[in-house]
Amino acid sequence: MLSAKEIAELRAQLYSPVLSDVLDQLGYRNQALRPLVRPLDETSVIFGPVRTGMYMPVVFDPSEKHPYDVEIALIDDLRPGDVVVFGCNGPTDSIGPWGELLSTAAQQRGAAGCITDGLVRDVRQIRAMNFPVFCGGISPLDSWGRGKMMTRDTPIECAGARVSPGDFVFADIDGIVVIPATALKQTIDKALQKVNGENGVRDALRAGESLRSVFDRSGIL
Amino acid sequence: MLSAKEIAELRAQLYSPVLSDVLDQLGYRNQALRPLVRPLDETSVIFGPVRTGMYMPVVFDPSEKHPYDVEIALIDDLRPGDVVVFGCNGPTDSIGPWGELLSTAAQQRGAAGCITDGLVRDVRQIRAMNFPVFCGGISPLDSWGRGKMMTRDTPIECAGARVSPGDFVFADIDGIVVIPATALKQTIDKALQKVNGENGVRDALRAGESLRSVFDRSGIL
Amino acid sequence: MLSAKEIAELRAQLYSPVLSDVLDQLGYRNQALRPLVRPLDETSVIFGPVRTGMYMPVVFDPSEKHPYDVEIALIDDLRPGDVVVFGCNGPTDSIGPWGELLSTAAQQRGAAGCITDGLVRDVRQIRAMNFPVFCGGISPLDSWGRGKMMTRDTPIECAGARVSPGDFVFADIDGIVVIPATALKQTIDKALQKVNGENGVRDALRAGESLRSVFDRSGIL
Amino acid sequence: MLSAKEIAELRAQLYSPVLSDVLDQLGYRNQALRPLVRPLDETSVIFGPVRTGMYMPVVFDPSEKHPYDVEIALIDDLRPGDVVVFGCNGPTDSIGPWGELLSTAAQQRGAAGCITDGLVRDVRQIRAMNFPVFCGGISPLDSWGRGKMMTRDTPIECAGARVSPGDFVFADIDGIVVIPATALKQTIDKALQKVNGENGVRDALRAGESLRSVFDRSGIL
Amino acid sequence: MLSAKEIAELRAQLYSPVLSDVLDQLGYRNQALRPLVRPLDETSVIFGPVRTGMYMPVVFDPSEKHPYDVEIALIDDLRPGDVVVFGCNGPTDSIGPWGELLSTAAQQRGAAGCITDGLVRDVRQIRAMNFPVFCGGISPLDSWGRGKMMTRDTPIECAGARVSPGDFVFADIDGIVVIPATALKQTIDKALQKVNGENGVRDALRAGESLRSVFDRSGIL
Amino acid sequence: MLSAKEIAELRAQLYSPVLSDVLDQLGYRNQALRPLVRPLDETSVIFGPVRTGMYMPVVFDPSEKHPYDVEIALIDDLRPGDVVVFGCNGPTDSIGPWGELLSTAAQQRGAAGCITDGLVRDVRQIRAMNFPVFCGGISPLDSWGRGKMMTRDTPIECAGARVSPGDFVFADIDGIVVIPATALKQTIDKALQKVNGENGVRDALRAGESLRSVFDRSGIL
Repeated sequence: MLSAKEIAELRAQLYSPVLSDVLDQLGYRNQALRPLVRPLDETSVIFGPVRTGMYMPVVFDPSEKHPYDVEIALIDDLRPGDVVVFGCNGPTDSIGPWGELLSTAAQQRGAAGCITDGLVRDVRQIRAMNFPVFCGGISPLDSWGRGKMMTRDTPIECAGARVSPGDFVFADIDGIVVIPATALKQTIDKALQKVNGENGVRDALRAGESLRSVFDRSGIL
Repeated sequence: MLSAKEIAELRAQLYSPVLSDVLDQLGYRNQALRPLVRPLDETSVIFGPVRTGMYMPVVFDPSEKHPYDVEIALIDDLRPGDVVVFGCNGPTDSIGPWGELLSTAAQQRGAAGCITDGLVRDVRQIRAMNFPVFCGGISPLDSWGRGKMMTRDTPIECAGARVSPGDFVFADIDGIVVIPATALKQTIDKALQKVNGENGVRDALRAGESLRSVFDRSGIL
Repeated sequence: MLSAKEIAELRAQLYSPVLSDVLDQLGYRNQALRPLVRPLDETSVIFGPVRTGMYMPVVFDPSEKHPYDVEIALIDDLRPGDVVVFGCNGPTDSIGPWGELLSTAAQQRGAAGCITDGLVRDVRQIRAMNFPVFCGGISPLDSWGRGKMMTRDTPIECAGARVSPGDFVFADIDGIVVIPATALKQTIDKALQKVNGENGVRDALRAGESLRSVFDRSGIL
Repeated sequence: MLSAKEIAELRAQLYSPVLSDVLDQLGYRNQALRPLVRPLDETSVIFGPVRTGMYMPVVFDPSEKHPYDVEIALIDDLRPGDVVVFGCNGPTDSIGPWGELLSTAAQQRGAAGCITDGLVRDVRQIRAMNFPVFCGGISPLDSWGRGKMMTRDTPIECAGARVSPGDFVFADIDGIVVIPATALKQTIDKALQKVNGENGVRDALRAGESLRSVFDRSGIL
Repeated sequence: MLSAKEIAELRAQLYSPVLSDVLDQLGYRNQALRPLVRPLDETSVIFGPVRTGMYMPVVFDPSEKHPYDVEIALIDDLRPGDVVVFGCNGPTDSIGPWGELLSTAAQQRGAAGCITDGLVRDVRQIRAMNFPVFCGGISPLDSWGRGKMMTRDTPIECAGARVSPGDFVFADIDGIVVIPATALKQTIDKALQKVNGENGVRDALRAGESLRSVFDRSGIL
Repeated sequence: MLSAKEIAELRAQLYSPVLSDVLDQLGYRNQALRPLVRPLDETSVIFGPVRTGMYMPVVFDPSEKHPYDVEIALIDDLRPGDVVVFGCNGPTDSIGPWGELLSTAAQQRGAAGCITDGLVRDVRQIRAMNFPVFCGGISPLDSWGRGKMMTRDTPIECAGARVSPGDFVFADIDGIVVIPATALKQTIDKALQKVNGENGVRDALRAGESLRSVFDRSGIL
């Protein structure tokens, strides 16, 4: 298990493309969320263990008594460092599971950020709070009567990637990568090595070496 | 009818999510434009009565004599505070009804902004003018021989929402909400109340109260 | 043939909408890339002759020996001023042909920029290098086992427009326009004229003349 | 409440376009399912009260104990004449809630048919049973680990139309129309009248009268 | 100009793939409608001069007085042999411009059939009449308050192909091809020749000759 | 390796849903092609080893000398029982890799059928030949200048499923399932068992046993 300090250091050293390449090499080739999910603030970086929730589309039902029960329970149960990942079967035009009040509650509990293929609102306020959010779009719509969280802390799909309790996610300007629990240590070790290798390639290219020569020597592109 | 001063004050106090929630409560649940329409400048806020135009796709016809007649008539008829809303059945890859020259003419007549599910061009110049524009995308293409405005000041659909003469729109960073003419006063009154209620919820969450407890007490999420 | 100095001057004087309008007038009506291709940096402007590559989707094949041969050959063959145009049959969620290392190699050879309907990664680093890139989206994914360049320097389709060796492209905040080789001189001459005409229209509108009157006089909208 | 005999007679006399037109006149303008839902057998006609189920996409979870509980409870509770309507947020490539065994169980309980915007399998066997099924496509996939029914007998959306317990549906070769519970009697009465009016129009057109003249006289097109 | 007898003979001798190939050779490479348009009856074959109409999406407006004026004028003006081509910017889920009554009126005037990228209704009745219809889908919805014909006998786009007054269309089980007025004679002459060439290729392949050998000799595939 | 006689017997005993369920149980959960691929003749059943080809979109290039070389080589190399599987990254509106002449050549060599997510033409003639074809749509367009086969007998993706040399496919009215080479024997054995189990379930349901009881006893739905 990674300590909070280790997580903070890795968040500063790693980036999503190198993690994606390492996961490819290890045989995990479906770990990146589809590009529809983008950060509200392009300087945001998230790294941490996931807490999942899954939404389904619903229609407005005036007799509905508990529209928010599952998500309230999840938010109130967040631990420091947790990353909220909400699957909405996005892209969606109507399901918006996140906004300022949930950001406030999650930040108060020490959560590291929120990632969803659904929509968010209160963008200005969320940016002002510096709470990292990656989302599938922006909309003023409340989720009530449009989408409802049906399960929490179960395996879900978010933007085409499978996300399970125990997995870690790394999110930055280039996208979001899911690291399976069982491959976490190996992925991190190899990624730290690869970061160094790329520096050499970059220098050689800047020095005018041909791409053919650099690639044949390093295997990196 | 709202005065220009009242409109300016409400534009500063309200925001689109609270208006969307109030309209939901009043039973108007299809008032938000789909999230494909985004502001050219994320600090833009528009609030005002709509002036509608509807485009249809056309193919280039060299014998066409009057490609722009309906939109020219609409623009020349704009009154101070009017919000241009152009429906193009978006998303579209080819119909771009707006650009710098129309922005110049509209701004000169005191129009409050333009909202379209079609495309715009001259983005740099429009931003430099500080004329608020919300659109479905950016493209260098002229509308001639691609789309043509067929009607003005009639009920239209724009990005999935129905917009009719007499309606008001409120547009900000979180999206665009159509307020039906008949519900304008009631919507504004309730929205002003709700803005206050949310402040209390935010404070309670920051103070560490559980989401469960706050929601049970306030009904706000 | 245009000199590097002429290209630099034209890049400062022209913009994509005016080129698109001129090409429309000359009967070339399918020259703009679809709006899904956007600049990583909205201040980027590219103008120059194209170097094309075409990708096809592939599945991961561990026996593949030469995943990058065609693109390496193309990059190593770039001349100063060349504009890389990579067709990926976008929009795509998985084919990302461009990143920091290719940007480094291309910039070292004097290339003017890269345009693709595929995905890119290493966005922060590319922006820091000031290498102009227009793309269909952002993703951490490597192209290996997802897409492969099959041909280079052949006619391709990119974001719905046909691009052939010998063509020039002009790309700015409003989009990307392909100028056929045979129409280059004529297009530039007419575009320079049109830039002047639009200044007069803008001034007349600012002075309060009606759009009807201005359009009837100038034919410009 | 309609008797089984009345339902059988109305199923023979009415058809979906006339019901759609009458609902339009009564102000119910969103009652038709989107055209993606088509009959397995184009001679099928269904008319009856709905029994709803709503699916959400899930990922395969080996620890899942009760994948089918809600749908089993619904099927075992069907009454003679009931019409199963399953919403899957279609079009979908992976959620297939219906097949031969459910058809067998439903038919044994006297159900009138099944309508879904999801996928079905066992098409040959279902056709051989003469059990009417309208669906969004055909696929061999089981729903387990892909979609799961989360609620039954609640308001749902199916192919873009809202369907609530108590509503009736009419489905034939031209599509599927949802008749709200409160408008059932009025809709049927007006539809029976309109069927007669259309006969006169058809005869007049066959006799060579102009469409202009026929429409001005009858208001029917 | 082709006589009715010539048209009938050509309809029996030609088919859409051979016409498409000939148009490709002549440099007309965008003449086929997208595959979403399919015949209601797969044995239908249509060949004749087009009569065009273009629809745009509208929202229901109770004050609308003339929803059908343009299409009524077009139908009442049909000449024997005319082929109705209605563009609806398809695929569409809501615009259905054709049904039994228009089929009756068109058939009474001797029209050869109807082709649309919109929706049709009254499928059973239209099949019973043997009136050839090719469409983008089936729906019970009336066009009133959803789509409206804005122009007739002008150049339009239908399912991605440009169709202009004076053009001919050929439609059969393999699709629909638009033959420009100016290329009609040349296209027919070459198509009749190609039909013969394909017979020889088919015989050689059946006799076991390799595809390589047959193609090198004939240039036909 | 299966003999031709064994293949014929299995083709008569098995069906795609039972194979899909067995593959699910064995952990192969992405083996079904998306539902966009449908048979030209719903009574067609194909079972056999695959021969793959992969197309990429191209634009017309008059200087192209060898548009068909790879596919001609593949067809001329077909062995009795082979199933042609052509990936076109479908759905596609323009790439049609199959028609009557290829069907004739393939049938002459004893091929079992063709499956593609691209388009086909000459539907009437192919049906008359009784050559089984499953496709993503119908179009008169030739592939020349639109799509080109770039590789053969390599791993490909077809309608969302991965297909590799050595795999078997089973295609019938319910869809198409890819059976990995290494799981072939095990899949067939388990599928034959499951066919028997379903007969018992069907009988119990017809006898009026509740779905709850039948499922709890058999685990089959």
